[in-house]
Amino acid sequence: MPKKEKGKLNIIPLGGLNEIGKNMTVLEYGEDIIIIDCGLGFPDEDMPGVDLVIPDISYLEANKDKIRGIVLTHGHEDHIGAIPYVLRQINPKIYGTKLTLGIIKNKLEEHELPFTPELICVEAGQTVRLGELSVEFIHANHSIADACSLAIATPLGIVIHTGDFKLDVSPIDGDMMDITRLGELGKKGVLLLMCESTNAERAGYTPSEKNVGRSLEYIFTANPEKRIVIATFSSNVHRVQQIIDISARHGRKVAITGRSMLNIVGAAVELGYMTVPEGLLIDINEIKRYKPEQITLITTGTQGEPMSALYRMAFSDHAQVSLGHNDLVILSASAIPGNEKLVSRVINELSKNGVSVLHDAVVEVHVSGHACQEEIKLMQALTKPKYYMPIHGEYRHLAANRELAIDMGIEAKNVFISDVGKILEIDSKGARFAGTVPAGKILVDGYGVGDVGNIVLRDRRHLSQDGLIVVVASVDTDARLLLSGPDIVSRGFVYVRESEELMEETRQIAADAINDCLMRGEHVDRMELKTRVRDDLSKYLYAKTKRKPMVLPVIMNI
Amino acid sequence: MPKKEKGKLNIIPLGGLNEIGKNMTVLEYGEDIIIIDCGLGFPDEDMPGVDLVIPDISYLEANKDKIRGIVLTHGHEDHIGAIPYVLRQINPKIYGTKLTLGIIKNKLEEHELPFTPELICVEAGQTVRLGELSVEFIHANHSIADACSLAIATPLGIVIHTGDFKLDVSPIDGDMMDITRLGELGKKGVLLLMCESTNAERAGYTPSEKNVGRSLEYIFTANPEKRIVIATFSSNVHRVQQIIDISARHGRKVAITGRSMLNIVGAAVELGYMTVPEGLLIDINEIKRYKPEQITLITTGTQGEPMSALYRMAFSDHAQVSLGHNDLVILSASAIPGNEKLVSRVINELSKNGVSVLHDAVVEVHVSGHACQEEIKLMQALTKPKYYMPIHGEYRHLAANRELAIDMGIEAKNVFISDVGKILEIDSKGARFAGTVPAGKILVDGYGVGDVGNIVLRDRRHLSQDGLIVVVASVDTDARLLLSGPDIVSRGFVYVRESEELMEETRQIAADAINDCLMRGEHVDRMELKTRVRDDLSKYLYAKTKRKPMVLPVIMNI
Repeated sequence: MPKKEKGKLNIIPLGGLNEIGKNMTVLEYGEDIIIIDCGLGFPDEDMPGVDLVIPDISYLEANKDKIRGIVLTHGHEDHIGAIPYVLRQINPKIYGTKLTLGIIKNKLEEHELPFTPELICVEAGQTVRLGELSVEFIHANHSIADACSLAIATPLGIVIHTGDFKLDVSPIDGDMMDITRLGELGKKGVLLLMCESTNAERAGYTPSEKNVGRSLEYIFTANPEKRIVIATFSSNVHRVQQIIDISARHGRKVAITGRSMLNIVGAAVELGYMTVPEGLLIDINEIKRYKPEQITLITTGTQGEPMSALYRMAFSDHAQVSLGHNDLVILSASAIPGNEKLVSRVINELSKNGVSVLHDAVVEVHVSGHACQEEIKLMQALTKPKYYMPIHGEYRHLAANRELAIDMGIEAKNVFISDVGKILEIDSKGARFAGTVPAGKILVDGYGVGDVGNIVLRDRRHLSQDGLIVVVASVDTDARLLLSGPDIVSRGFVYVRESEELMEETRQIAADAINDCLMRGEHVDRMELKTRVRDDLSKYLYAKTKRKPMVLPVIMNI
Repeated sequence: MPKKEKGKLNIIPLGGLNEIGKNMTVLEYGEDIIIIDCGLGFPDEDMPGVDLVIPDISYLEANKDKIRGIVLTHGHEDHIGAIPYVLRQINPKIYGTKLTLGIIKNKLEEHELPFTPELICVEAGQTVRLGELSVEFIHANHSIADACSLAIATPLGIVIHTGDFKLDVSPIDGDMMDITRLGELGKKGVLLLMCESTNAERAGYTPSEKNVGRSLEYIFTANPEKRIVIATFSSNVHRVQQIIDISARHGRKVAITGRSMLNIVGAAVELGYMTVPEGLLIDINEIKRYKPEQITLITTGTQGEPMSALYRMAFSDHAQVSLGHNDLVILSASAIPGNEKLVSRVINELSKNGVSVLHDAVVEVHVSGHACQEEIKLMQALTKPKYYMPIHGEYRHLAANRELAIDMGIEAKNVFISDVGKILEIDSKGARFAGTVPAGKILVDGYGVGDVGNIVLRDRRHLSQDGLIVVVASVDTDARLLLSGPDIVSRGFVYVRESEELMEETRQIAADAINDCLMRGEHVDRMELKTRVRDDLSKYLYAKTKRKPMVLPVIMNI
């Protein structure tokens, strides 16, 4: 049988590099493509009105026939959230662990696709054959249960993709990341390691999830008289398990509020990822039957989201729960960059209502789910890869990860900082960047996928800064007459009732511009008329107010 | 002489409580008012287009005759930035230390007021008589030189206002905060302590400014071959002094870039707050004559501001400086909440260009200028006030400060968390809240002061989320005829060229709505016509797109 060493392996990230979230990577060998993860991202502040961001998959649409499957590392939004959108274009089989698929099923129900996608459940330790490639799922620790790293066997060698991971020597389910298997692969020889970079700037090790349990145990003991409300990420099944166990030990019933928390706890219990003592969980409507010290509330809203249960409790807008001096709120999470002010708003409001608040700046009620520098170095040392690619992070994180690899002895020329759409080509002779494929951000806004782009966003940003002025007039260009108007309508520019003079002058300048245009020249061009009105008004308004509202002339020719 | 114990002292914060910045406090006794600080704030994300926020001073305008002066604690924007605006309404004498007034003079020149305000220079240790009140300036440590706490002697007792402070036992100018004087006042008896709360959630002590010097010394020694670029706050005169001294020791010339940095260093040198060895400073245009290792660059841009010198260097848009592998950039500052993403953008771009970047998460290149918990407690222990008011901070900070005071033995009923516009009334019988005065935020946008309010902001936010649809038509309501249109103009809603069908349907629905209105009923009301068009289109567009653009019908009756 002839060896395939002449083949080429292409590694093409479609998301997750030079950005946070939207993780998606394509591996292509010969006639086979596999896709690792299919996540969404959240819009930056320069994308007003956008709900979420998904990867551009033009390259996959053009190569539909080659796709052998999507393999998933875990069930977080930034790794699976784009699936309902992507499935409208391509429809491959989807491989993932039980909890991951459980979360996807919930999601797909909401989206009502016109067909049923094929979800194939795998367990850590299992290997799936996908064309000439085969994918081994390796148990990893992370802030969600059932997470995996992947080892992809290719004719050129083994590629390891860490997914999101940390090394937790005392995880809640007792199941440490399978670093033994990673070490075995390292001894056999690893061609390429793709390693996550989220915490690559942070020294040391990420603490164990158990530390959070210890802190919570202490807080429960120190506050025997208060109702305890804990906000955490709904997907952090092990965190929720700890809260349940500690509550049981302290004789508290547990009530759950927040849609995603109810969904995920439901799925986790059903699938066996969570054990709840008989009779411990009570409905949120029952809490009034108990004394404060008999209740633990688990809720969503760690990021200060204005629609979340915690936000509504803080602003006295929650149907079943109102908080006060008898309550202790624990924010068992950290603020995602960009959300700091929202979180602060919730803390302020809770404090105003006399609620005690504990958060991760004060006590260890949260630990990260991502590997810090020593764990990344351990990963590098175990797998001893020939080539190295930092993934998952902004450039600063990728660069910090690269430095770690080089410090650990991987040759600098074999470390590749790639980008979305950039092809890393590996063959028996070596590895090199080899061109790009179409890739980028597709914006989702309401039902629209991809119909909001740069021009629309530029207009939204412009409108948000100084508002707009609409100038409406009807003219008869043949008779060279201004028939009616100009009328001025403004929004978001200035408080009109207190700016009558400005508005009247604006109207006058528009009228002058129109009349002047109508009188001058041989032929009256409507385009020219508009440009003249826009220019004259913009100049006048900037001189008067130092603002640049959007000026929208609407000239009707009758 | 009859004693005045029947008098009432009113403490009225006009800014700085339940918010960050915009610090301003009014003390009123009988016929005398003094104003402590006069700062600006920065707009929240829900105030698009707004440049800055100043206090509402209606109460002061209504009581002009009583005002004896503005006394300033230090020269930061959040304590002096509103002066040029406030001086257009009221024009009292302004008292401050030399550097504080130097910064104000710079500021006033830019604003070109129609008169010359009276600035009166005082030194720490000096007392100024203002009507029945007298104000003693007490030297404090902070992240700007020449900062003061204030002790205001009133007929009812002494009020201490800390201003912003930290206790630095080894400050760069050798001049520790005058806690001895504070202790002396404490022994005499202090009526009220108003103490800043910025770091009231942080345990321990704030490190000395000298720690930053030690870190920088180490970094300079470890990077003898690189050009070093340090971004810091321009007002941190002592930080800049340390950079200059270390550069001199390492045989480097120093160049400065960034308008505010040039301004403040100029003022500081002129006023004697900074000592620069002869020949050390060079013009930014001269740096090309030197090798990288012979240069230190001091620049603005620690917050990632898109117009700043550092931002322009990072994005290869700076006239004199381009950065690369030979450069080390130090961000000697921390990101102000809300600016994290902007700062990250700069770090990413620098890293992409091969620049090494150090920031405060990695090495101690920045220390806070504000008191942590132990310093706040020391302040409380020294002054032993009867009444206590936490100031400067969001509610969470004020609440944390209150807890410290109560822990230190101040009676809970004597601790007052106040609010902007809320009057704390003190007399010989006690202290209590006693009503409010008009107060709040005045928004500055371009030349406009106060002409942008809730309605304008609501419209800007609406426009930024989903853009707008303008519907223009001319009708003859008497003849019940649609003469021309409706024309549809959209901005920021959807990419029009790819949505022709949607636009055509929109036009049709608008036409139907207008025709229907024209045909029906006795009398055609233009208002009704507009409402009908707006309602029909909003409903249709939401059903089609799940978006809510602003719909602006302009119906001309001809």
